[in-house]
Amino acid sequence: MREVAVIGVGMSKWGELWHQPLRDLACEAVLKALAQTKVDKVESIHVGCMTGGLFAGQEHLASVVADYLGFAGVPASRSESACASGGVAFKAAYAEVAAGICDVALVVGMEKMTDVGGDEATYALGTAADQEYECYNGATFPGLYGMMAVRHMHEFGTTRRQLSQVAVKNHANGLLNPEAQYHAKITFDEVESSALVADPLRLLDCSPITDGAAALVLCPLSTASKLGKKAGVKVLGLGHATDTIALHSRKDLCRLAAVETAAARAYKMAGVGPKDISLAEVHDCFTIAEIMVTEALGFAELGEGGKLVASGATAMGGRIPVNTSGGLKSKGHPVGATGVAQLVELVTQLRGEAGARQVKKPRVGLAQNMGGTGGSSIVSILGVA
Amino acid sequence: MREVAVIGVGMSKWGELWHQPLRDLACEAVLKALAQTKVDKVESIHVGCMTGGLFAGQEHLASVVADYLGFAGVPASRSESACASGGVAFKAAYAEVAAGICDVALVVGMEKMTDVGGDEATYALGTAADQEYECYNGATFPGLYGMMAVRHMHEFGTTRRQLSQVAVKNHANGLLNPEAQYHAKITFDEVESSALVADPLRLLDCSPITDGAAALVLCPLSTASKLGKKAGVKVLGLGHATDTIALHSRKDLCRLAAVETAAARAYKMAGVGPKDISLAEVHDCFTIAEIMVTEALGFAELGEGGKLVASGATAMGGRIPVNTSGGLKSKGHPVGATGVAQLVELVTQLRGEAGARQVKKPRVGLAQNMGGTGGSSIVSILGVA
Repeated sequence: MREVAVIGVGMSKWGELWHQPLRDLACEAVLKALAQTKVDKVESIHVGCMTGGLFAGQEHLASVVADYLGFAGVPASRSESACASGGVAFKAAYAEVAAGICDVALVVGMEKMTDVGGDEATYALGTAADQEYECYNGATFPGLYGMMAVRHMHEFGTTRRQLSQVAVKNHANGLLNPEAQYHAKITFDEVESSALVADPLRLLDCSPITDGAAALVLCPLSTASKLGKKAGVKVLGLGHATDTIALHSRKDLCRLAAVETAAARAYKMAGVGPKDISLAEVHDCFTIAEIMVTEALGFAELGEGGKLVASGATAMGGRIPVNTSGGLKSKGHPVGATGVAQLVELVTQLRGEAGARQVKKPRVGLAQNMGGTGGSSIVSILGVA
Repeated sequence: MREVAVIGVGMSKWGELWHQPLRDLACEAVLKALAQTKVDKVESIHVGCMTGGLFAGQEHLASVVADYLGFAGVPASRSESACASGGVAFKAAYAEVAAGICDVALVVGMEKMTDVGGDEATYALGTAADQEYECYNGATFPGLYGMMAVRHMHEFGTTRRQLSQVAVKNHANGLLNPEAQYHAKITFDEVESSALVADPLRLLDCSPITDGAAALVLCPLSTASKLGKKAGVKVLGLGHATDTIALHSRKDLCRLAAVETAAARAYKMAGVGPKDISLAEVHDCFTIAEIMVTEALGFAELGEGGKLVASGATAMGGRIPVNTSGGLKSKGHPVGATGVAQLVELVTQLRGEAGARQVKKPRVGLAQNMGGTGGSSIVSILGVA
């Protein structure tokens, strides 16, 4: 297996983009990523998208993306694993480059969510959970994460204020990210007085509905300096795992087994541990998710994730900055694009190009992308080449 | 890269299966495939499904399938490329085994289409075309293939009777396949007096709406005799390509560029040509599609596909039997499952286990799976190990 480099990254602006169809978002992100390279054609395309059918009436995005980029002919596939679709598309492209199946691969994460109404969006997002058992009985995503939050508070004494701290921190970071959906500093009081969505989760505990795309260009590390224009970043580790689709089938509501397993695989492959990570992008679809994920990744002991964020360790300038991009919470969460955008942030940081939100001399970055309530997860570790 | 073997194949019964949810279909097919092996766990799962969201309200099928098979934890992804989703899932699994990323991979193709009404099914299938330009302006899939048929008849003198011959042949074959949706011998008169759907295509020119699943177990050829219980079948070649998503962007309505490119890649990798193929499963979503695909695969010259089927060369006992399984036309077309089921048929034939529809001593089989009107295609070539 060959070592793999990321030589180009790009993002469209994220937000409520009624003027741009889905395919335009993808092209905008890809053209930015290609502009960072000397590459003008690719050999393989991997699209991450959760539900083009329900949100945009368009499946077969592999063909749409290849066509609209002027790459018709090139092999293209779409990968889906709910909100981990972007991470799964990255894994597929990584495998092809590592194995020597292709020499230049493109990864595109995309989702256009704001063209449907609220009820339709809730239904579409519910297809990431167990439709026949959870959603049929009335569960929604905030409801499922609300149950996890209640249990975490009961078991470990996690507090309302600790949940708020995740939102306050990530919105502070998002303020420094030009592509983020929201540029709004928020206060503890604002989080705690926002509308109750699913007890204990309030509106400002939830990531938003977003339109957006993100893209990566991959090649073997051996050709990265020839094909790229920027400082080298390489893939150190990648882990992927599943868990039961439904929350009611889990042994423990407070643990994310897919994240734990994916992280163990990624750390092993990379030959590093939680203490070696300079910064992490994690899947904060709800504030409780970031707390639980930091535990599953080993940044804190089980039950100590609330204390970790409260300590400031995961804030900018802390021991292990988490979600410097603003995270799903402030940057936005176009579900299929999220996993790819996490890697865009890591590459930007590892190159030292993150501007006002730059972490000081990062060496190793970790991205954790998750489907549903943790029914699937991908953990990727990148490092300075 | 390692050589890859298919050691287990399975299909659920196909048809209008209101008593079985989507996940049950997948499990039925997988359990049959695993029963042909000595394997009781897998290292990777690749699901092919076109639009679980629109047909069944369920995305995140990677997690659903892993969970319901008792394989929660195992890395699982879903691949989509419209009606070529099954073929794309097979390609993803093949790449992982060939590259040494995993040693036992499972491929599952699945779709449950009959739980929605006719209008909803037409809309869902339209997401394989260009929704914003073709479907928005009123095109449906029979309409798009109807235009291709009209042009093919105009350019090459392809006849109504030649279209009918595809349907008559494939229904005759399907009569011999216990898993097929339809077991009905049909006549030329019945095809030609069936309801007009999109001129010149009539009801019996169209593949049906189907529920069904199919599964494959892959491993390196070097361990196939240890892990399998059946005669060895290996992957010789695999080609994948895209074309423009919309028909109006093509230079030539009578050529399927994605199929031609994918076939050229597969033949090159396998070191064989059209004359070496013992039998083929091709994507006869409409009768005209089989005629055009046989040309794109090089079984006939451009424009001669109608004459090929009329000559009997593609019938059982002919020079190159096509769609011995009954094809999409008679076996059924659960869109995400089709590409996997084509490979199930090839393996069954290459092992000499096809019973009443057995081709005499086949050595090399080809499967051609296609998305939309040819916006993507996968061509796979299998051989006796």
